[in-house]
Amino acid sequence: MEWIIKAEEFDPDKVEWNGTRFLLGNGRIGVRGTLDEYGKDQCVAVNMAGVYDQVEGKWREPVNAPNPAYTYILVDGERYSLPDREPASHQEGLDFKKGIFFRKTLFITPRGRVEISSERFCHYSYGDLICMTYHVRADFNCEIEIYTGIDNEIWDLNGPHLKNTRLYEEDGVLISANETQEKKIPVATGEKIHVDFRCERQVIQENDKILHRLTFIAEKDREYSFYKFMTVEKGPGAAERAKSAALDFYEKGYEMLYLDQVSVWGKSWDESRVEIKGNEEDETRINYCIYQLKILAPRFDKDLSVPARGLSGQTYKGAVFWDTEMFILDYFLYSDPEVAKTLIEYRIKGLKGAKIKAKEYGYEGAFYAWESQEDGFDACSDYNVTDVFSGRDMRTFFRDKQVHISAAVVFGIIKYIKATGDTTILKDGADELIIECAKFYDSLLLKKVHSDKYEIHDVIGPDEYHERVNNNLYTNLMAKMVFEEAIKLLEEGELRSRFEDDYKHIFIPTPNKDGVIPQFDGYFSLEDATLDEVRSRILNPKEYWGGAYGVASWTQVIKQADVVTALELFAQEYDRDILKANLDYYQSRTEHGSSLSACMYGLLHLQLDEVEKAYPFFEKTSTADLVQGGKQWAGNIYIGGSHPAAAGGAYQMMIYGFLGLSFEDGKISMKPRLPKDWEEVKIRLKYRGNVYEIIEEGKRGTCTKIG
Amino acid sequence: MEWIIKAEEFDPDKVEWNGTRFLLGNGRIGVRGTLDEYGKDQCVAVNMAGVYDQVEGKWREPVNAPNPAYTYILVDGERYSLPDREPASHQEGLDFKKGIFFRKTLFITPRGRVEISSERFCHYSYGDLICMTYHVRADFNCEIEIYTGIDNEIWDLNGPHLKNTRLYEEDGVLISANETQEKKIPVATGEKIHVDFRCERQVIQENDKILHRLTFIAEKDREYSFYKFMTVEKGPGAAERAKSAALDFYEKGYEMLYLDQVSVWGKSWDESRVEIKGNEEDETRINYCIYQLKILAPRFDKDLSVPARGLSGQTYKGAVFWDTEMFILDYFLYSDPEVAKTLIEYRIKGLKGAKIKAKEYGYEGAFYAWESQEDGFDACSDYNVTDVFSGRDMRTFFRDKQVHISAAVVFGIIKYIKATGDTTILKDGADELIIECAKFYDSLLLKKVHSDKYEIHDVIGPDEYHERVNNNLYTNLMAKMVFEEAIKLLEEGELRSRFEDDYKHIFIPTPNKDGVIPQFDGYFSLEDATLDEVRSRILNPKEYWGGAYGVASWTQVIKQADVVTALELFAQEYDRDILKANLDYYQSRTEHGSSLSACMYGLLHLQLDEVEKAYPFFEKTSTADLVQGGKQWAGNIYIGGSHPAAAGGAYQMMIYGFLGLSFEDGKISMKPRLPKDWEEVKIRLKYRGNVYEIIEEGKRGTCTKIG
Repeated sequence: MEWIIKAEEFDPDKVEWNGTRFLLGNGRIGVRGTLDEYGKDQCVAVNMAGVYDQVEGKWREPVNAPNPAYTYILVDGERYSLPDREPASHQEGLDFKKGIFFRKTLFITPRGRVEISSERFCHYSYGDLICMTYHVRADFNCEIEIYTGIDNEIWDLNGPHLKNTRLYEEDGVLISANETQEKKIPVATGEKIHVDFRCERQVIQENDKILHRLTFIAEKDREYSFYKFMTVEKGPGAAERAKSAALDFYEKGYEMLYLDQVSVWGKSWDESRVEIKGNEEDETRINYCIYQLKILAPRFDKDLSVPARGLSGQTYKGAVFWDTEMFILDYFLYSDPEVAKTLIEYRIKGLKGAKIKAKEYGYEGAFYAWESQEDGFDACSDYNVTDVFSGRDMRTFFRDKQVHISAAVVFGIIKYIKATGDTTILKDGADELIIECAKFYDSLLLKKVHSDKYEIHDVIGPDEYHERVNNNLYTNLMAKMVFEEAIKLLEEGELRSRFEDDYKHIFIPTPNKDGVIPQFDGYFSLEDATLDEVRSRILNPKEYWGGAYGVASWTQVIKQADVVTALELFAQEYDRDILKANLDYYQSRTEHGSSLSACMYGLLHLQLDEVEKAYPFFEKTSTADLVQGGKQWAGNIYIGGSHPAAAGGAYQMMIYGFLGLSFEDGKISMKPRLPKDWEEVKIRLKYRGNVYEIIEEGKRGTCTKIG
Repeated sequence: MEWIIKAEEFDPDKVEWNGTRFLLGNGRIGVRGTLDEYGKDQCVAVNMAGVYDQVEGKWREPVNAPNPAYTYILVDGERYSLPDREPASHQEGLDFKKGIFFRKTLFITPRGRVEISSERFCHYSYGDLICMTYHVRADFNCEIEIYTGIDNEIWDLNGPHLKNTRLYEEDGVLISANETQEKKIPVATGEKIHVDFRCERQVIQENDKILHRLTFIAEKDREYSFYKFMTVEKGPGAAERAKSAALDFYEKGYEMLYLDQVSVWGKSWDESRVEIKGNEEDETRINYCIYQLKILAPRFDKDLSVPARGLSGQTYKGAVFWDTEMFILDYFLYSDPEVAKTLIEYRIKGLKGAKIKAKEYGYEGAFYAWESQEDGFDACSDYNVTDVFSGRDMRTFFRDKQVHISAAVVFGIIKYIKATGDTTILKDGADELIIECAKFYDSLLLKKVHSDKYEIHDVIGPDEYHERVNNNLYTNLMAKMVFEEAIKLLEEGELRSRFEDDYKHIFIPTPNKDGVIPQFDGYFSLEDATLDEVRSRILNPKEYWGGAYGVASWTQVIKQADVVTALELFAQEYDRDILKANLDYYQSRTEHGSSLSACMYGLLHLQLDEVEKAYPFFEKTSTADLVQGGKQWAGNIYIGGSHPAAAGGAYQMMIYGFLGLSFEDGKISMKPRLPKDWEEVKIRLKYRGNVYEIIEEGKRGTCTKIG
């Protein structure tokens, strides 16, 4: 299979997208797949997981570190860099088996051809390390100057985040030492170079850069190479550590670090890769999804979870959403349960903040952050979208009305315990967390004075285009699930009785005569405009479809699976006919404007054994970062970046859907329904401490413990 | 006192405002105070009370009849009309003692001076009659052509409403016969002219006009006059009646009709005028307010109530709002109880529609129309304001969330019975109406599952800038009042117990430590921006301050008295300190962007004997139509026209406030608090079948039955 994805030519319109597609990461840092010579205008970022900062009056978001890989060359005094110079040929890409970004570019100069190439990786064994090698060759004798070092001109959405910057050289290491604006967290980048040819060397500072200048007369056809060991550190002593770590890695040498990278990635793939005989394209897609999940997994740090755009940048404030528990977690449950545990622990630690948030809104219990940053701090603003027409911030209700987040946290815990059998987290805080979430939903319940139905009003469900609705099916079902889980944890008593009463009376919207369940009260009386009609009303390509006056807001057109998500999760409680009716009804009304949408359709179709209907959704969710064209804007807000939830959804479709795996009490069972052209699927996964290889060919599946 | 208001010069920027300020009417038709030669661009309107029409896709609104008073002249072949020709002098105005509009204009032509003058009145004894006389004089011999007749080019906001138009002359009467678009209601205008000088006469049709052309050689300094008898008819046979009535009135002659007009207005003033010794300006203002109320009173028709912009045009769809019961009714209670009864009967007739509306929204009982047209039909659209930035219709919630309207209807009935002692309306439908409104509020009540407070969520209170709020003080107090009134009407039984339970448990927001009551849940946590700050954020002078993203929506700045209105109505239930604290707090946060606001502040100040603080609000509410500068736009929607609720509020301030009149069980008592410069106030009013003259001078008031 093809473990390499690449661009075979230079296209200035793909710079931002390639940066995401060819993303590197190791869970602590993400390095965008941008070229060595790029700067902030080309969306270069060395994204730091869990380091957040706020510039007054702007959104709080993760910090991008100064870029230590910045490099460009001059040939006979002329600069040859993209995107300003037209290359004769160019390729760039990602070897996602090894986690290595590469590029090769040929320029034709007045006197001859110059080729530059480089490789770069975020080291998978060392959270603070980025390595690179860079090569240049000319087919004529010429003077070459190489500039390489640290670029402190940082791409920020809501920056600048770093201040008190010091750029200096110490013990042969270039260092950028900084502090964040808000909490004054030290952030440092170090860079140690190894040059294996003779040249004149100087360290210079220009603008916000500290650079080596390597000057030499290049001989025709000889390749000149150098190697860089780059460190990204945070916290007290960051600058000192950036230096000492860079020196340590320099001592290890590029070759050894490279072999280690290949080996550790190889081991990781041995425990999680998917092979699909019959469709190599799908094989590449699903493994690429797994790659995207691997690079954002918090493997070095305990206090982290997974941002909705991974480590691809600052979109969505680098915050953790329901994506983690509902879409992403499952991959880690069956590949890296330690990471899964970290994700759960992150929420347990966030309980304190969730209680404070509940109180802030006059509720009891725990109301989790919609956009969770460190310690569960809710970074979500009341004004989250900009009106493209007036330029004004729009009052949005994601923070205060998207109450289903607390249920997602509970749902994640339940999945974790079921998959791992690890009940210790209950006494380590998950027990209290579940009960506090139940208290939260209990305090949300309303009843009409003369009715005995308990309702939940004024919420936003998964479909964000419809604000402030009553009795959203998904929300009410999830709240009911939380009551059920809390009851299991409680002894007889007042609180348990209360939740039992809630469980019994909570109103779950019911199907109409056609079997379709309204997404919320009054949904069917909204204008039943087609998706095309709604799209045709758009006046500005960047305008937000939702909010109070969006083109979709008062129609039945929805952003993403909502009832379908609810039914996917609770399918066992509904007849097949109901599931089919809702899939049909909502499919034609769903924009799939969220990358969380396709997989839920796909999964529900697979529950109905509708493999052919499911397959296009697999294609969509597994290529969210492999094809260009996702939404980059919500109002005037940039929302580009990677889509780990879509990748996680693809993984769920693979294991739960196509393979029909289920995991009960330590046993794995299989109910496969493969697309026609998939002759054989082989998957490695971890379950209850062992690695399994599961092979499904035709209808005879095998499951073998291999480690 | 000055019974005449006028403009002493021509100002093209005041054309629309003067049309409203100098408005004529008799309850069946309103004729704007526009000049004879004006057309649709100058907002000419012959507004027909209670005749509504809808053009497909547009708002339903009252029909303007073809204008039979259209007149202009040519002198030596040159047209002399405003606004196209600069006059040498001009005056126009209203004698509101007699209900007569007049104008006098002097033009200087190349050969000399030409003066035209005219008078016009809507006859107060004949609902279908408009009379006018027109005079022209030149100070040189010249050829004059007069064109006068019916102009079918109609000013419409959402027209055109008339079709199948036939313009013809029959038996000497010019006739415009038409049908409305929606219900094909015949609408006809007739015009019979009496010319008292010799001229060449022709009838011509040009564009949408049928006109007499009178041509003559005018002798120097001689005045040439003619008289017109104009009829406006609706319904089957309208054209025939327009003709025969015009002929009948022609027979009566201008002089007799004029004397009758003066006499009937005189009698009306004898039963309702106010005299203020010491401040003639205030005397003019209050009587002008009374004039504005007199001209819209439905005295000829039983199925009408009072539109929020009177008969001044099509603003607000010519619909009846809560203005009628809360602001306007009181004048009629004490001047024309028959009209008051008509207003109540209009609501009783609308009960059927109110029940249908309640059902439409899933409620029980009667949910009255927010914008009530004939038979209580709710003309309110879900999209009532246009976004000036995107040009899109904004989803507004006036129709579905402004639930306090049903309580206003009940409140009006209670006031009517108290003032008139007429309980017969109870058995004639008001009884059922009150109980159905109580059922409506009962079905709105929500409770948190573990609380025993009954709440009302998701409403708009009087302050329309804050949408979809919970527990609006005004709404909850009014709902409680409805329960109380329904309980009084019911025998022991399930329904009565239910309302008693509701009455007991309904949540009434309470004062904070400073004595201020939040307008709704969470009001105090909104941004506490000053009015100036909010105003400074405006980007477009026509933009709407409310809605989801308006400049006021997420601040504490409110459009109009809301808590203050609630406290004004229920002042007896609150301590003086609370009343003062709320007046203070809300005053600085109130835009007074509604003409319903000032009088409520004024009335509450007067309840606290704060005459000096109250007076500026009297000035504001009594001059709503006398000073230019009210809001003319909400988004891109025209909202100009007269303000009868402000006039009604001025009347309430006069009788309840300054005079401190109260009416209990047939007795009038007085607790005056007059502004310093009001030496004596004398007011005529009707109470329980008698006319009283109430005189207050200093502290010794007298109340004398005079008829």
